[in-house]
Amino acid sequence: MIIQKTENSKLPTFDPNNFSFGDTFIDHMIICEYENGKWGDVKLVPYGPLPFTPAMMGVNYGQACFEGMKAYKDENDDIFLFRPEKNFERINKSAKRLAIPEIPREAFIDGLNALVDIDREWIPKGEGMSLYIRPVVFATEEVLKARVSNKYMFAIVATPAKSYYSAPVSVKISDYYSRSANGGVGFAKAAGNYAASFYPTQLAIDEGYDQVIWTDDATHEYFEESGTMNVFVRINDTIYTPKTSEKILDGVTRDSFLQLAERNGIDVVVGDVKVADVVAALKDGSLKEAWGVGTAVVTTRFEAIGYGDEKFALPTLADEDSFAFILKKALVDIQTNHAEDPFGWRVKVDKKY
Amino acid sequence: MIIQKTENSKLPTFDPNNFSFGDTFIDHMIICEYENGKWGDVKLVPYGPLPFTPAMMGVNYGQACFEGMKAYKDENDDIFLFRPEKNFERINKSAKRLAIPEIPREAFIDGLNALVDIDREWIPKGEGMSLYIRPVVFATEEVLKARVSNKYMFAIVATPAKSYYSAPVSVKISDYYSRSANGGVGFAKAAGNYAASFYPTQLAIDEGYDQVIWTDDATHEYFEESGTMNVFVRINDTIYTPKTSEKILDGVTRDSFLQLAERNGIDVVVGDVKVADVVAALKDGSLKEAWGVGTAVVTTRFEAIGYGDEKFALPTLADEDSFAFILKKALVDIQTNHAEDPFGWRVKVDKKY
Repeated sequence: MIIQKTENSKLPTFDPNNFSFGDTFIDHMIICEYENGKWGDVKLVPYGPLPFTPAMMGVNYGQACFEGMKAYKDENDDIFLFRPEKNFERINKSAKRLAIPEIPREAFIDGLNALVDIDREWIPKGEGMSLYIRPVVFATEEVLKARVSNKYMFAIVATPAKSYYSAPVSVKISDYYSRSANGGVGFAKAAGNYAASFYPTQLAIDEGYDQVIWTDDATHEYFEESGTMNVFVRINDTIYTPKTSEKILDGVTRDSFLQLAERNGIDVVVGDVKVADVVAALKDGSLKEAWGVGTAVVTTRFEAIGYGDEKFALPTLADEDSFAFILKKALVDIQTNHAEDPFGWRVKVDKKY
Repeated sequence: MIIQKTENSKLPTFDPNNFSFGDTFIDHMIICEYENGKWGDVKLVPYGPLPFTPAMMGVNYGQACFEGMKAYKDENDDIFLFRPEKNFERINKSAKRLAIPEIPREAFIDGLNALVDIDREWIPKGEGMSLYIRPVVFATEEVLKARVSNKYMFAIVATPAKSYYSAPVSVKISDYYSRSANGGVGFAKAAGNYAASFYPTQLAIDEGYDQVIWTDDATHEYFEESGTMNVFVRINDTIYTPKTSEKILDGVTRDSFLQLAERNGIDVVVGDVKVADVVAALKDGSLKEAWGVGTAVVTTRFEAIGYGDEKFALPTLADEDSFAFILKKALVDIQTNHAEDPFGWRVKVDKKY
C-alpha cells in the first residue's frame, strides 16, 4: 500500500460535538484504479477531488455500487469495525451483477484498516458516535458506448457520524412504484437502485409520509424493503421479515438482528410478509411494532403505516417492551464494546501506521 | 451563454477517415451547474476533466440520465440535427423520474446548437458519417446520504461517428433476467438501467449471442426491448413492436420508423409482442425479419434468435425486400438531407458563432 499523508490536516477544525454528518470528510481516502485487466496499487491519499470528464462511464451508464459500514471507538480509544467481511463479500456480489471486476482484499480490507487506523483521531467517542465509512466502486473509462467499462476506481471515503437516534417515521405501502424487478439488481447495492427510489419517496413525502414500504412489482402484495432499509414487523410476539432474494438486500444489520432475536428467545419468521396480513393486524391491533434496519441508524421505528387512503397509527411501546429497542441495544452494545461478543462480529483495528 | 474557446484545438490531429468512435472527443463541451435551487450560466468550455471526489452522489446513488443524438453534415457543409425537441422532452421525463431538476431549454437546445456550430469542422462528411452527441446530467453534491442531491451538472459532450453499418446480430430471448420493473424506471434513459443490463448480456455472449431480447420481469412472455434498442419483428408483411410504457423507452428512431412505415404503406401493429407468437412464427417460417432500432446505428438486423435451448436462423432478405432496410434508408435520407422532409424532423444548425 502506498501511503501519502496530508500536510494540511483538517482535524484542528473538527469539533466532535458540532459537525455535519455526511459532508464532513476525514483527512484521507483510499483509492485503487483498475485498467488493462488488473487493479493497480492501493493508495491512501488526502481526501479531495480527482479529474473526471462528463464522459465518465460511471455517470453515463451507472456501473457503480457501494457499501455502508461503521467504525466505533470505545472508552479506551480502541477502534472496532463491525463484520467487515460481510461488506467485503457483498460488494463483490454487487460488483458481479454489474459486471464490475472483483475488488481485491488488499484494497477493501487492508484499505479499510489503514484508513481507519491513520484517521482514528477523527472518530468521535460516546454514545451513538461512530465513523461512517463508504467503500464505492465506479466505472471511469471515458467512452460514449453502452458497454462494460475497461477502467474503474475503487475508493473508500468516510464521515464522522452522530447519534443513532432517529425519530419514528410514517411509511406508505407502495401500491404502484417498485424498486426492483425479478431478474434485476434489487439485491445489489447498485447506485441506480437509490436514484430510482427518490421520486416515489418524494410523492410519499408530499402525502405526509417519510418513507415508502416497497412491495413486489408484479402484485404489490408482498413487503420487500422500507426506504433504504430491511423491514421487520411484529404481530403479537412474533417478528416477521421478508426472506432475502435477488430483489431484497442481504443487510448486515438484518442478519445481526435475526441472530440476536434467536439468542434472545424471540420468535422470528423469515418468509413472505403479505400486505393483507399486515393491514389486518393493523386493524385488529395485533401489530405491535414495525421498523426498518440498516447501518446508518440501526433502527427506524414506524409510528404510522399508510395503505391506500388509510393511515394506521402504531402503538407507542415502552423501550423495555419493544423488540426493536431490545435488539438495537444488544447490537449497539456489541458494536461499541459494551457487551460480550459471542458471535465474533467485532474486529479491532490495530495500530499499525 | 459564456463561450470560452480552446487555445489548443485537437482538430489538426483528427483524421475523419481514421478515428475511434466513442473516445475521440471534439474540442468543446457544454456545462451548466445547478445549486441553491437554480441552474447557473450555460458555458461552452474546452473538453476536459473537472474535479469530483469519490463522494460525488452521481456515482454513489446513480442520479444520472442521458440522451443520445446525432448531427449530420450534407454536401454543402450544412449541419442538421434530427428531432432535437424529442430528446429535450425525453431528458426531462427521465430527469423527473429520477428527481433531477428540469433541464432548461437554454442549456439543452441552445447549448446543443452552440456546440455543434462551433465544432462543425469536427463533423465528418459522407455516407453514414455524423457527430454523436451526448447530453448527460448527474448529481454532483458530495454527501454520504441516500437522498436527493442538491447539486447537479448538465453537460453535452460529443464524438465523431462512423458508418451506420452494423453486422447482423444473434439475440437471446431472456427467460430469467429483466431490465425493468412495473413502477420502475425502464422508460427513462437512467444510467442505472444500462449497468443492470451488462451482466445478463455477458452471459448471452458466453452462449454465443450478441444481445439480449428483454422480456417482462413477471412472466417473460412479452418482448420489451433488444439490447439498448427498441425491437421490431416482421411476421409475413406486418411489423409488430411493443407499445411504449413505463418499462419501455420511447425511442426517437422507433417513433420515426412507425411514421415512415405508415407513409410507405407498411402495416404496423403496436401492442403486445408475445414470445410464443414470435417463436411460432420462427418455426413456421412466417417470421421474415426482426431488428432493433436506436440512434447509434439506426438499425441492427437479427440473423438468429435464441429461446431456451433452441436457436432459430432468420432468412437473409435482399435489401429491396427488407422493411428494415427500406425504413432505415428512408430515415437516413431525411437525416442527411438526401430526401424531402415532410415531417419537419431536420433542424438546420445556423452559423452564429
